[in-house]
Amino acid sequence: MLLEKRMSKLKQWMKDSDIDIIMCQTRANVFYYSGFDTDPHERLVAIFIPQNDQPFMVCPGMEVNQVQSIFSTGEIIGYTDTENPWEKINNALRSRNLSPNKMAIEKLLSWERVKYLTQICPLTELIEVDEVVLNSRLIKSDDEIRNLREAAKLADYGIQVGIGALKEGITELEVLATIEFELKKAGIREMSFSTMVLFGEKGGDPHGNPGDRKLKKGDSVLFDLGVVWQGYCSDITRTVFFDHVTDHDKNIYEAVLQAQQAALNECEPGNPISNLDKAARGFFKGVGLDGYFPHRIGHGLGIEVHEFPSLNETNDEPLQAGITLTIEPGLYIPNKVGVRIEDDVLITEDGYETLTKFPKELTIVP
Amino acid sequence: MLLEKRMSKLKQWMKDSDIDIIMCQTRANVFYYSGFDTDPHERLVAIFIPQNDQPFMVCPGMEVNQVQSIFSTGEIIGYTDTENPWEKINNALRSRNLSPNKMAIEKLLSWERVKYLTQICPLTELIEVDEVVLNSRLIKSDDEIRNLREAAKLADYGIQVGIGALKEGITELEVLATIEFELKKAGIREMSFSTMVLFGEKGGDPHGNPGDRKLKKGDSVLFDLGVVWQGYCSDITRTVFFDHVTDHDKNIYEAVLQAQQAALNECEPGNPISNLDKAARGFFKGVGLDGYFPHRIGHGLGIEVHEFPSLNETNDEPLQAGITLTIEPGLYIPNKVGVRIEDDVLITEDGYETLTKFPKELTIVP
Repeated sequence: MLLEKRMSKLKQWMKDSDIDIIMCQTRANVFYYSGFDTDPHERLVAIFIPQNDQPFMVCPGMEVNQVQSIFSTGEIIGYTDTENPWEKINNALRSRNLSPNKMAIEKLLSWERVKYLTQICPLTELIEVDEVVLNSRLIKSDDEIRNLREAAKLADYGIQVGIGALKEGITELEVLATIEFELKKAGIREMSFSTMVLFGEKGGDPHGNPGDRKLKKGDSVLFDLGVVWQGYCSDITRTVFFDHVTDHDKNIYEAVLQAQQAALNECEPGNPISNLDKAARGFFKGVGLDGYFPHRIGHGLGIEVHEFPSLNETNDEPLQAGITLTIEPGLYIPNKVGVRIEDDVLITEDGYETLTKFPKELTIVP
Repeated sequence: MLLEKRMSKLKQWMKDSDIDIIMCQTRANVFYYSGFDTDPHERLVAIFIPQNDQPFMVCPGMEVNQVQSIFSTGEIIGYTDTENPWEKINNALRSRNLSPNKMAIEKLLSWERVKYLTQICPLTELIEVDEVVLNSRLIKSDDEIRNLREAAKLADYGIQVGIGALKEGITELEVLATIEFELKKAGIREMSFSTMVLFGEKGGDPHGNPGDRKLKKGDSVLFDLGVVWQGYCSDITRTVFFDHVTDHDKNIYEAVLQAQQAALNECEPGNPISNLDKAARGFFKGVGLDGYFPHRIGHGLGIEVHEFPSLNETNDEPLQAGITLTIEPGLYIPNKVGVRIEDDVLITEDGYETLTKFPKELTIVP
């Protein structure tokens, strides 16, 4: 039902734009249109959606069984490691009498695959499918929101576990291991990205790597983590302090918290997306800290942990109810401290709801 | 030193083939030529290597600090979320008076990025760089072998932990969580792929997903896991039996073990790579089980868990000392049982050495 609805939206666009066939082969889009979620590594897993025919899928032979149990609306074409999937695609197109004038493909399709495609469809004009697909994925259905809500709840739990594990001398990696252990026991197969646990000055680098840095009294502890639940991602950041907090770090923390609230206050349908970044950036500027916020305020969230919309200060598209996104201002004082606070946010008819609910008041552990 | 050696190999090829500049932007190749290892998600991180000038790198502004601490042989160009990295690349090329006739790029470069590249270098002929880079990565240096050896040792430890966790009623995900917990405590930040723990009939699907299936007496337990150590991957599979083993499953196990030995016996420099797959496949055919081995015998292993060479039955390139690869025959009886045995193997001057050392005799736990 859900898949048919998505497909019919796509077919309407195909009619309007004279697109004969669409090919999707990124993990996220294959999942969105087929229900089949797999990391294909270097092998091709693709769904082809003709305007006037049933869709068909192409995947490694050993995955055909799995795909069959999920995708029932069209043919599934398997190939072995010594077969050329493009020959099979060529045959599939010919047997359907499909010689497309216009085909829509993903921006991420590799140069190599575009060359194969051009060999079997030399006269076909190639068009970008991304905008229509990403815009379709932008507004979440009730089912999707249910999954995002559950993913956010499990992210909250991850923070709780992480805070519970803090003790003097423990390393970043030990805390990280404890968080993922408990989440996996709770049924999580996959984190939505590499979990981050950074102590003290390590947090001063916005993309620092957890290692064997040991926890000391007075350290900040920055957690950034998320899970995949039924194919949907969460992404939360919390920063707490161990044993005590200096006035310097406390001021940084309060500034980030206020900047986040400034951005959250802009979360309502109709507002330009750029307002969110501007609100936080403007707040930091007002307190003389704008030099320490080097990234955008957030990103869309869904099947991918980074998806539409991009929440930068130049995106003037309006917010819409049903969009899910992150709001994650941060301040990074090199070699000293890093504070980031991030929530997953659902835009609603009359404003917003944060899906991650873990408390945000300045917290000193224990 | 190591990086310069790699670079000079590349420059020789560029001279021989009249390539003016190379662009690499896959995580593995950027790491191989710059030493900088990052998952750039959707953002561009690239290294440009001109034939007659210093290399330069392009990365998000917030990663410049990290790159600087590792990559010292050329300029590092940062860009913010609202800047267009391609404009900066264009400026970098112009300021160096580089208007390349021939540029070598990766097959995996996306259609979108090729279009940007074509905009700033409209007259440049694009060539594939992959073969020369992958062939350069094929033969491992002593440093690389040291890292692969350590990664393999940690994979052995993962199997040991997994076996130690087995008890009646435990779920696949609980065992998986225990393995990753202990590996992370041992200093591992990243598994080389999603860990697999499959019980009984779940193993009958070569790409099954661990879930809440509970362990029962008589189950097979298939572990497939690997770690990343200093940027290098391991990949091991072991299958054990819980409480007891049926004659059927025992026969399957012994066949896989013998097929693996048949492939290992072909591991020596000069032998065509296809012999490895043929040896295992031939063995299975001889005992009437060839219908249950749906994948190739293995793959190259290094910075990526799947890299050159592909060990299928049509690759007739000769084995060379210094190549590392996996040998992983398996038999999958749908809805019944799956057995796979996989080792990481280094080709040596006079044969091979298995880097993973966990015992392979039929094991019944406890």
